[in-house]
Amino acid sequence: MSAADNQPKRKLIEPRTLKGFRDFLPEAMIPRERLIERVTKVYRNYGFCPIDTPVLEYLEILMGKGSEETDKQLYRFKDSGGRDVGMRFDLTVPFARFSAQHLGEIGVPFKRYHLAKVWRGENTQAGRYREFMQCDFDTIGTTGVISDIETALVINDILERVDLRTEGSFAKFTVHINSRKILNGALEKIGLSQSAVPVLRALDKLAKIGSDAVVAEMTQTANATEEQARAILDVASANGTNEEILSRLETLLAGAELGLEGVAELRQILEAVKAAGIPEQRFVLDVSIARGLDYYTGVIFESFLDELPTLGSVCSGGRYDNLAELYTKQKLPGVGASLGLDRLFAGLEELNMIEKVFSTAEVFIPLFDINLSTKYCAIAAQLRKRGIGVELYPEPKKLGQQLKYADKKGFKFALVVGSDEAERGVANLKDLRSGGQQEVSLDPEALVSALLSQQS
Amino acid sequence: MSAADNQPKRKLIEPRTLKGFRDFLPEAMIPRERLIERVTKVYRNYGFCPIDTPVLEYLEILMGKGSEETDKQLYRFKDSGGRDVGMRFDLTVPFARFSAQHLGEIGVPFKRYHLAKVWRGENTQAGRYREFMQCDFDTIGTTGVISDIETALVINDILERVDLRTEGSFAKFTVHINSRKILNGALEKIGLSQSAVPVLRALDKLAKIGSDAVVAEMTQTANATEEQARAILDVASANGTNEEILSRLETLLAGAELGLEGVAELRQILEAVKAAGIPEQRFVLDVSIARGLDYYTGVIFESFLDELPTLGSVCSGGRYDNLAELYTKQKLPGVGASLGLDRLFAGLEELNMIEKVFSTAEVFIPLFDINLSTKYCAIAAQLRKRGIGVELYPEPKKLGQQLKYADKKGFKFALVVGSDEAERGVANLKDLRSGGQQEVSLDPEALVSALLSQQS
Repeated sequence: MSAADNQPKRKLIEPRTLKGFRDFLPEAMIPRERLIERVTKVYRNYGFCPIDTPVLEYLEILMGKGSEETDKQLYRFKDSGGRDVGMRFDLTVPFARFSAQHLGEIGVPFKRYHLAKVWRGENTQAGRYREFMQCDFDTIGTTGVISDIETALVINDILERVDLRTEGSFAKFTVHINSRKILNGALEKIGLSQSAVPVLRALDKLAKIGSDAVVAEMTQTANATEEQARAILDVASANGTNEEILSRLETLLAGAELGLEGVAELRQILEAVKAAGIPEQRFVLDVSIARGLDYYTGVIFESFLDELPTLGSVCSGGRYDNLAELYTKQKLPGVGASLGLDRLFAGLEELNMIEKVFSTAEVFIPLFDINLSTKYCAIAAQLRKRGIGVELYPEPKKLGQQLKYADKKGFKFALVVGSDEAERGVANLKDLRSGGQQEVSLDPEALVSALLSQQS
Repeated sequence: MSAADNQPKRKLIEPRTLKGFRDFLPEAMIPRERLIERVTKVYRNYGFCPIDTPVLEYLEILMGKGSEETDKQLYRFKDSGGRDVGMRFDLTVPFARFSAQHLGEIGVPFKRYHLAKVWRGENTQAGRYREFMQCDFDTIGTTGVISDIETALVINDILERVDLRTEGSFAKFTVHINSRKILNGALEKIGLSQSAVPVLRALDKLAKIGSDAVVAEMTQTANATEEQARAILDVASANGTNEEILSRLETLLAGAELGLEGVAELRQILEAVKAAGIPEQRFVLDVSIARGLDYYTGVIFESFLDELPTLGSVCSGGRYDNLAELYTKQKLPGVGASLGLDRLFAGLEELNMIEKVFSTAEVFIPLFDINLSTKYCAIAAQLRKRGIGVELYPEPKKLGQQLKYADKKGFKFALVVGSDEAERGVANLKDLRSGGQQEVSLDPEALVSALLSQQS
């Protein structure tokens, strides 16, 4: 008896999602889960530990740190208890609050990863989503370069694993690396430390407006002489091989303690990357990247898929001086990065690097003879116990229709058992890709061997 | 340079979470992730596929189906575009909306799993949380008993894997199974079909108020004669072994088509459970369970940890006639269940079945000699490449302090390399549990063998 039977006919409610929000069907979700598992595995391999925080936070926590832009985009409301609350717009602010709140329990150094959804009321015209996933990892409570190095290695290991085609192919990528200490050191050396923000803002336009216009802007907005502006431009334009850039920076920054410290750290990171067996050309020293105006204070990273440079950075981060200054007096320096899963996926799709999969199991057993239902369950149980996923068809339709379903869903094998086969203890094993078939024994071990030998 | 340096001192914001919301620290999150992985693996082993839906839905979608109670507990608000929206309070309503919206793409039968957070503004005094996780799986678009059977098997396979102690021990559990067709068949037989709701309501009180009071209530609220009420009570009180109950029901329901159909299905499910090699006593026919008043129409399941019967059901579900009637005219019968992850965890904690783990890696490499940083990175890279997780300590503290950190975090091994060892190509491998140590070669293959032999 269904409740609806007793109720007057209602008008149907239109099934729809909110603008900027999406459903994920299996063919989208299966590769997402696969990628998330790979990323998680990399994090764990380096000793990063999972944490989780609530989706809702007190509004004052969220408004404290964000920019004007994120404040405007916040999903905020009064809960039924009259509290001002909001949905998190990133995973950094909750982590800052978390660290301040649990510092005594977690201790430092503390290495965490957090894969979760965040919400921003963005303009959807730009093809952006209002609900998306972030995959952050951070090491806090230390200024040790080892943690900078490990951040670089994790970024590398993740991006080595993003290609989701089965053939073992590989999405080429490049990690751009820089240190905020270099430009800050240069500014210190020439006495322009107080003008970091307008200088960076002007430098950001270098590619667009050219060096003369940048120099002009610096003299106007950053209170720089033309000589000072040219000196900064020299640093920001250093190019060549990593080693050539490092040497050039050492010359340009001679006497600038902070700047030389940045160069030495970059040198150490690049050496360790090499020692870890990573191809040298994959990490590129790029003095032009800045990553926002004030949060980062040391090394910074951006990463690009070589075949899609316009996609933007798919994994970015860097070192900061103080994570949780709004919530605790305890200084928490750290370093970390965030994988932009949704942007990465958009890129992988464009590159055809995501194999469409519609099933999580490999073997399909049609309901060929409804009187053998229990037999089919027993066969499936034996395979599942041995780690082989099996789907049973639940309806006694014509075999052809059932196999059509199996084919559409992308199963590798169908195991057809009629009463004759059941009596003889055998099955007809169909390879749904090649179209071949053979009779196999229903003895569990023999059946598993037959399936495994077909797969290879 | 940090932005804060230029700003006046601000008052600190108190780092806190909302009432009814919690943070998960690594020692809580590591076992949660492990359990979620195990559950997901079971779902996939049966061919269930992952989907995801937005946290926010149009309010009319959420208000359409829920009960008065869930309506009251909804986190709802107007978004900045003036839309009435709400946060999902379960995964069934979004799945119903999803199925109606994407039916043409997904086709039937469709098997999905969905593990995600839901929100309810519950009374937190009862120890309840306002943010919790649900783990649903369903097969829709079929009335085939095979899907009922597989629901039973999945519940069994999940609960076989919830004990999170490393020793391979096992949380005993019992799955109670019933069919709504039995009582509905009995009501049909005696001409009381229209009174199902008050009859069920009275039966629910059987344990509390006794059979005479239940009969009295039925005569008052369900328009039943005393004879009818006694007949219903006879059915609801059938007990003994599963086979005894089935036989007794066959007698009591003779001539009641729907009721006998229910008995036959239960018999088939229990046979298949046996054929799948599951101990018979684990599935108990229990005519007293009802699971709410109107949603379920066929088989129903509840599951209990044997050592904690008062915890309540940790995995429940059943068969329903029509999932998405509010959103589509297409009838979508189905069957499924939901694992109550948070309740289950509370139970496992009470039973000490969760091993505290504070680290995701096994091997700890102290920063014994800062000049060997690159060397440590190279050693770690070799181990990680071979699937062995390694954490490097980032600060050049005293070795004792570093090892204390490693011990507290629960690493199994420390690999200590000083300049002498590095020169000789060896390391001091410390077993942090036994306290033993030995010199091992830094050759990657030899090192991995040494670690693996220590583990076993």
